[in-house]
Amino acid sequence: MTLRTGKEYLASLSDNRVVFYAGQRVDSVTSHPELSLHANAIANSFGNGMGDDEALLKQRSTLLADGDRVHRWAVAPKSREDLLAFVEMEENLSGDEHGALTAGLSALQILAPRMDAKHGTNYVERITKYADWFARTDAQGAFAMTDAKGDRSKAPSGQVDPDLFLRVVERRKDGIVIRGAKTSVTAAALANELLVLPTHAMGEADRDWAVACAVPANAPGVVMISNYVGKPWGPEFRFDRPLNHSAFHHDATVFFDNVFVPHEKVFMDGEFEFTREFLGYFTSLHRTRILVMEPRDTKKLIGVAQLMARYNGLEKVGGIKDRIGEMIQTAVLLDTLRYAAFSRLQFIEGICVPDAAACNLAGLTVTSTRQGYLSFLCELAGGPVLTAPTGLDLANPETAALVHKYYVGSPGVGAEERLRLVKYIYDIAASDSAGWDRALAVSGAGSPGARRVAAARGFDLEACTASVLADLNTSAA
Amino acid sequence: MTLRTGKEYLASLSDNRVVFYAGQRVDSVTSHPELSLHANAIANSFGNGMGDDEALLKQRSTLLADGDRVHRWAVAPKSREDLLAFVEMEENLSGDEHGALTAGLSALQILAPRMDAKHGTNYVERITKYADWFARTDAQGAFAMTDAKGDRSKAPSGQVDPDLFLRVVERRKDGIVIRGAKTSVTAAALANELLVLPTHAMGEADRDWAVACAVPANAPGVVMISNYVGKPWGPEFRFDRPLNHSAFHHDATVFFDNVFVPHEKVFMDGEFEFTREFLGYFTSLHRTRILVMEPRDTKKLIGVAQLMARYNGLEKVGGIKDRIGEMIQTAVLLDTLRYAAFSRLQFIEGICVPDAAACNLAGLTVTSTRQGYLSFLCELAGGPVLTAPTGLDLANPETAALVHKYYVGSPGVGAEERLRLVKYIYDIAASDSAGWDRALAVSGAGSPGARRVAAARGFDLEACTASVLADLNTSAA
Amino acid sequence: MTLRTGKEYLASLSDNRVVFYAGQRVDSVTSHPELSLHANAIANSFGNGMGDDEALLKQRSTLLADGDRVHRWAVAPKSREDLLAFVEMEENLSGDEHGALTAGLSALQILAPRMDAKHGTNYVERITKYADWFARTDAQGAFAMTDAKGDRSKAPSGQVDPDLFLRVVERRKDGIVIRGAKTSVTAAALANELLVLPTHAMGEADRDWAVACAVPANAPGVVMISNYVGKPWGPEFRFDRPLNHSAFHHDATVFFDNVFVPHEKVFMDGEFEFTREFLGYFTSLHRTRILVMEPRDTKKLIGVAQLMARYNGLEKVGGIKDRIGEMIQTAVLLDTLRYAAFSRLQFIEGICVPDAAACNLAGLTVTSTRQGYLSFLCELAGGPVLTAPTGLDLANPETAALVHKYYVGSPGVGAEERLRLVKYIYDIAASDSAGWDRALAVSGAGSPGARRVAAARGFDLEACTASVLADLNTSAA
Amino acid sequence: MTLRTGKEYLASLSDNRVVFYAGQRVDSVTSHPELSLHANAIANSFGNGMGDDEALLKQRSTLLADGDRVHRWAVAPKSREDLLAFVEMEENLSGDEHGALTAGLSALQILAPRMDAKHGTNYVERITKYADWFARTDAQGAFAMTDAKGDRSKAPSGQVDPDLFLRVVERRKDGIVIRGAKTSVTAAALANELLVLPTHAMGEADRDWAVACAVPANAPGVVMISNYVGKPWGPEFRFDRPLNHSAFHHDATVFFDNVFVPHEKVFMDGEFEFTREFLGYFTSLHRTRILVMEPRDTKKLIGVAQLMARYNGLEKVGGIKDRIGEMIQTAVLLDTLRYAAFSRLQFIEGICVPDAAACNLAGLTVTSTRQGYLSFLCELAGGPVLTAPTGLDLANPETAALVHKYYVGSPGVGAEERLRLVKYIYDIAASDSAGWDRALAVSGAGSPGARRVAAARGFDLEACTASVLADLNTSAA
Repeated sequence: MTLRTGKEYLASLSDNRVVFYAGQRVDSVTSHPELSLHANAIANSFGNGMGDDEALLKQRSTLLADGDRVHRWAVAPKSREDLLAFVEMEENLSGDEHGALTAGLSALQILAPRMDAKHGTNYVERITKYADWFARTDAQGAFAMTDAKGDRSKAPSGQVDPDLFLRVVERRKDGIVIRGAKTSVTAAALANELLVLPTHAMGEADRDWAVACAVPANAPGVVMISNYVGKPWGPEFRFDRPLNHSAFHHDATVFFDNVFVPHEKVFMDGEFEFTREFLGYFTSLHRTRILVMEPRDTKKLIGVAQLMARYNGLEKVGGIKDRIGEMIQTAVLLDTLRYAAFSRLQFIEGICVPDAAACNLAGLTVTSTRQGYLSFLCELAGGPVLTAPTGLDLANPETAALVHKYYVGSPGVGAEERLRLVKYIYDIAASDSAGWDRALAVSGAGSPGARRVAAARGFDLEACTASVLADLNTSAA
Repeated sequence: MTLRTGKEYLASLSDNRVVFYAGQRVDSVTSHPELSLHANAIANSFGNGMGDDEALLKQRSTLLADGDRVHRWAVAPKSREDLLAFVEMEENLSGDEHGALTAGLSALQILAPRMDAKHGTNYVERITKYADWFARTDAQGAFAMTDAKGDRSKAPSGQVDPDLFLRVVERRKDGIVIRGAKTSVTAAALANELLVLPTHAMGEADRDWAVACAVPANAPGVVMISNYVGKPWGPEFRFDRPLNHSAFHHDATVFFDNVFVPHEKVFMDGEFEFTREFLGYFTSLHRTRILVMEPRDTKKLIGVAQLMARYNGLEKVGGIKDRIGEMIQTAVLLDTLRYAAFSRLQFIEGICVPDAAACNLAGLTVTSTRQGYLSFLCELAGGPVLTAPTGLDLANPETAALVHKYYVGSPGVGAEERLRLVKYIYDIAASDSAGWDRALAVSGAGSPGARRVAAARGFDLEACTASVLADLNTSAA
Repeated sequence: MTLRTGKEYLASLSDNRVVFYAGQRVDSVTSHPELSLHANAIANSFGNGMGDDEALLKQRSTLLADGDRVHRWAVAPKSREDLLAFVEMEENLSGDEHGALTAGLSALQILAPRMDAKHGTNYVERITKYADWFARTDAQGAFAMTDAKGDRSKAPSGQVDPDLFLRVVERRKDGIVIRGAKTSVTAAALANELLVLPTHAMGEADRDWAVACAVPANAPGVVMISNYVGKPWGPEFRFDRPLNHSAFHHDATVFFDNVFVPHEKVFMDGEFEFTREFLGYFTSLHRTRILVMEPRDTKKLIGVAQLMARYNGLEKVGGIKDRIGEMIQTAVLLDTLRYAAFSRLQFIEGICVPDAAACNLAGLTVTSTRQGYLSFLCELAGGPVLTAPTGLDLANPETAALVHKYYVGSPGVGAEERLRLVKYIYDIAASDSAGWDRALAVSGAGSPGARRVAAARGFDLEACTASVLADLNTSAA
Repeated sequence: MTLRTGKEYLASLSDNRVVFYAGQRVDSVTSHPELSLHANAIANSFGNGMGDDEALLKQRSTLLADGDRVHRWAVAPKSREDLLAFVEMEENLSGDEHGALTAGLSALQILAPRMDAKHGTNYVERITKYADWFARTDAQGAFAMTDAKGDRSKAPSGQVDPDLFLRVVERRKDGIVIRGAKTSVTAAALANELLVLPTHAMGEADRDWAVACAVPANAPGVVMISNYVGKPWGPEFRFDRPLNHSAFHHDATVFFDNVFVPHEKVFMDGEFEFTREFLGYFTSLHRTRILVMEPRDTKKLIGVAQLMARYNGLEKVGGIKDRIGEMIQTAVLLDTLRYAAFSRLQFIEGICVPDAAACNLAGLTVTSTRQGYLSFLCELAGGPVLTAPTGLDLANPETAALVHKYYVGSPGVGAEERLRLVKYIYDIAASDSAGWDRALAVSGAGSPGARRVAAARGFDLEACTASVLADLNTSAA
């Protein structure tokens, strides 16, 4: 088996999958005007397979024990080197997170030996085989985790409709049948394999809901409804939306309407007591991305602020310098947390797990600072961020001279240069993409509340009270 | 003269004005697919003229001394009753702010007697006549204030290109010729009259830039480039964008390319020493809107948060209640500032000016809280704010049952009801409209920095130091 | 009856009251080395009785209907003029709040007619008579409100020991017997009369705890333990503690150990359903002080910051100016809230009640800003705030020259002048007085949580949700 | 030479040093009622010399190359093990920071080779010898850094009085003569050796002020004025001030009135271009303490909050749990920064320097959170934090029963236990000690502004702008 090319990946999506978009069944995700934009972006990650770009090959792929070459995002990191190579790859690939399915599999691999030991199951064998197949097949994976949930104050077993959390509705000799819906599944309509995972720490009554398994995206009973976020502006607005003129997010609600899963693809079925720990490992592996993206993104914002101030002749204004100073402090903090996350490692069942606390602290740092920074960029850009002429007006000979004359910045900064930056700010701070990022930051990969809980996991509160009581007793003596 | 109907207003826009949109000259703003949406919204404010809806007439219009009926937004408030009636009208009209040109005129009317007294000009006469004409003509006005600016650290007279702030380039017997560009002019392409105003407190060297005058939107030399913010989603997405499926912002950069203005429409020409005070009155009159909209908008956010929590079964969660409690505190503060702004009034030259400090404090309150509240709404809605199916999927019989089954909330809350709210949150918190609002909040009607300065105007810093020195002397005695 | 002199007030404290201080019974509060400092400060408010200082007399006293002159703090405000005169008096008197007992009485006076109407009691008569006696006697009052409480998650009736909230333990023909403890009673040991008030909104089961009555400070069964806050520095450190070298806070826990109260001094006994409303009126009347003190105190902090920056040559530093700008914004907000509180008045049963929302918002504003400002003052003063030589070293000829030479500020600012300010900062920001103020701000006159609840009282949450539902229905139509 | 005992240390202070306290010359710092408290605390760090407590010996001392045993705080860390051992020692010793002089010496040792290489000086030899002597003599050291400064906007050479920054006033054959004052020198009056260090990055004109040298505390011309912070409460208030009843801070202003320093104790004289770098190393080594103390102190505050909530029956209240959750997040962040600071090490000239960014970020984290947490503790404790009876009242048989009855907490929590905690909160949050800590946090070891600058040192701002320009160029292509 070799690495697939982007073309082969795209071809694999013509598999009769059931996808709906804005009220209509989608014939082909790869020829659909909007879904295809996203599909092509993913195809781009695959590249040209065993191409001759050695550097790229080294960055994106790794070798299995038998020398077979697979994509790096398809295998769990086994060493600090693996982890850092994965990080480097992520930093150099755009688009959705890579390896999300792998993070889920890895967390299951960590727990499988203990589940097997306690329950006499053979999860280790199943997962090992599946993970190997997944990597060698070079499948595109997505993880399906967040349930429909209904009444959020109730456990799965407490819902009026038991299907509001995905569950096992039938156990057959050769497999299980699952029913439920998983929401917000990233790029689901463009994946080959879906990894179903439990979304909560569950109790004994929730046994039937404690299920993890792999399902092909075109399995009978799988129905996907893609989200809709408006029409892309298109390449003619490349000047005005330098980052997102044609970039679109297509996540989906995936309905599992009595889907059969053969035993060899079932990795948890009823072992509710492992769900809490599963979530801990999964999120540590999965949220790593924040440490990949956020220090870099924060630095971009700093660069934008500094340039905009410079272009407007305000580089030396005390208040602006102070604010950029705060942003730098945040960037340095994120760098330091990144260092800690990738240095204070755990090795469990041979898998290298980054530091959960550092990772979640980074997420919280971003959540509490990002929106303020974006507003600051808008403030620096001023009214033009919303009302400046488009690149098309700059090109139109009827208006070009006026735009060029009046949209200059401080001496030496031409209108095109300045407007280019203004539009960049629009794209990251005042567009629908900015809205997407805002909502994603508080709902994707865990709410701030979930992150706070995760950051505090393992914190010894009673040691704190004990230390105070010791002081009090000393003074009482 | 009677009040114009919406139709008459629309007809008046066919006047050969020069408008560009996304790189193309616009033949007719009222038949343009996007600008017309905005034009129709404005037309809606005009209504049916002297119609038979007494209540509406009372709300939107007032009588001049001679009994002629004019739109309320066309005349300066002369009493607390006038002011409160204006406020009530604004609360019941959607769309852009009304009376922005009037606010500018009013501020000029306040200063005209003193300019005349000092310089022997006849501004009082000119403005009085123009204001009367403007009201009786029932013209649609816009104010053109923000200059191109170039190097923001330099005064108008210090720019490399003197046109970077609009200025008088020629003085003729019968009028003046102006050149420059005003950016971010709200709904300029849909106005009849533009009121050019100075944007800064100016010094003696900036005399030629201290100019205020009125210009018809179709005057020779006036060129407008509208902004572009993407395609509207359209009414088929009414479910998914309940507020903004077809609502679009069309502001413009207005270029004044050697525009002649006859003397009777010139209201300031060189009286630089009045520019600072002008800005104070103008912003007090103009920023009033924040006190009209923000208490109400904040209450909407509170309503949304409360409903979303309820729909998700989380109404009693301590952290959520606390956060809603904070929002309520903000709403109560805004209500209190509104009370103060509309009670602690100044009457100058017969014009009723609301309290500047209260008004600017309200603006600062909104700037420092709004984005956090919007993120909170996204957190409450969770992933579906981005990824839920559309109303079209809810209507599609192939998918309706699945959506209805899985997108329910807590018992009794159906999927349609819940999704409707989720989409509302998308619209106000995660869409391009949310981005527009964010940028507007920090660039329209003054940056937070400008608001802070305005709120502190008149604060007696030296009285503070004197009081401390008095304490120190007492203790020294 | 005439106004008492300070001397007469002091003499009245020799009444065999039972007071303990730092483990010892106090023979005489007026000759005790520390309590007497506080007693003398209160005596100072009384002044010289019917003296010949007309201005002072006008400020501090008012006339009853029959022309009898009484202290202003002893009568409820009946008009806006009364209220503003009270405010002016408070601004010109130092020390503890005046009129705290009166605020309690006023709130009871507001409710008495309704209690009488519902229960056939004769509270109106009793309170009227008592209030009249209290004012004409010129008694010094304190209100005793906060109960011991025990388990704060339980109502009075739910405590293990029913005495943990003060209650009626016996009802006799001529009066009631109460038992319990009231904590944190301001200047209790130096009062003539104690007004016992309920501390919570109570339910039906708490009937025996819903009690309000007046008790002389020397009544049999009343035991007071004063707090202890260290030794005063004394007047020799007047330079180093310009405000608090000899100023001391002496509040007390007041134990009511089966204290008999005759009917005519009982103003509530069992009418639990009025306790919630009682608290609303009481706090509105009582918290007024924050609007008297806090705008002024904030301006002092601004003055200190500005002077310290100036003395150190840092007046023009951008970051420092910005920070002082924030402080000014707070001061302007407090001024505006003060305006609202004293303008948006309620008149109930003839008593003038200031606006509760404005008042509580002011409290919350202070709580959320004050500590940061104090830290900023310390930062401006630098290390010397803790480590500078004392005034005694400045006076000591062995060291004076060195201190004078080296502790100068920017040119023209001498060491004595600068150190005087540094010490002032120590006193308000880094001393035990600063600690007292900090704790008082979050425990006296209500915690921030209680203030938030009080500010939101009357807020119509369901109107908010209704407005959103109306929007949704409109878009659904 | 052996390690000195505490007694020997105390004896060494009788050396005719010139110390003033509250306006009086101090005969003997070790018999002075207040200074002696501090002296004894330091003596306690010394312990009993080469005692038989092996564990203590291991913790507090280390061996030189020749096997001579010296105190750990007297030598620079050469390895990660050294650094962690130092940290462990600091965690187990109370009182002032140890090794502050050593941090200064270490930073000089790092730069000496480069100063020698550039200027042909022999600083390496001098420092090596002095450091060895200092360690073997077991001297108690203090560093004297902060100058008098005068006009803070001016460099040393720009002051009206050149002595406002300490400088070399004479260069003799055998040494230099220095004049100036160093303020806020920690425990100066109780040190044997003072290390004079430059306080600023200096320019060429400041050559005479770029001086570092060692001076005995009793050198002719050295005059010290101790600060004064009131009288200690004393051991009878051990219950009420469990931590600080007798703990006192005694820092001093040290005047160098033409003090001669022999060449062998001069470590910088005019090499102004090294001052900036010197400050970087010094603060990295010195600020380490924050990473030793703050995670621990924050955990104490968490313990206090949790216990107080529990004692008051409020442990399960959502808002309180959330607030404690925030505190935990801070503690986890501090732990993570500590990990980073002691892992991401630099080794320069054989000295192990912890990570400056992590260290300064920790400082900033504390500065921005601590005061809020302390106010929260006061809020949890309520009024009693200020007004509860003393331990003496609890012991007094006349009042004990009342206090024991009424100051209980939730069931099972006795009054003594609860009051003990309340008093602990007073001590750390509302006493003069709390004020000291507040001011120290923003003036000692660098202001927040200085920390922000230090955290950002080395941040590549232009790399940020370059990355944005690259994006823009890509989109421009």
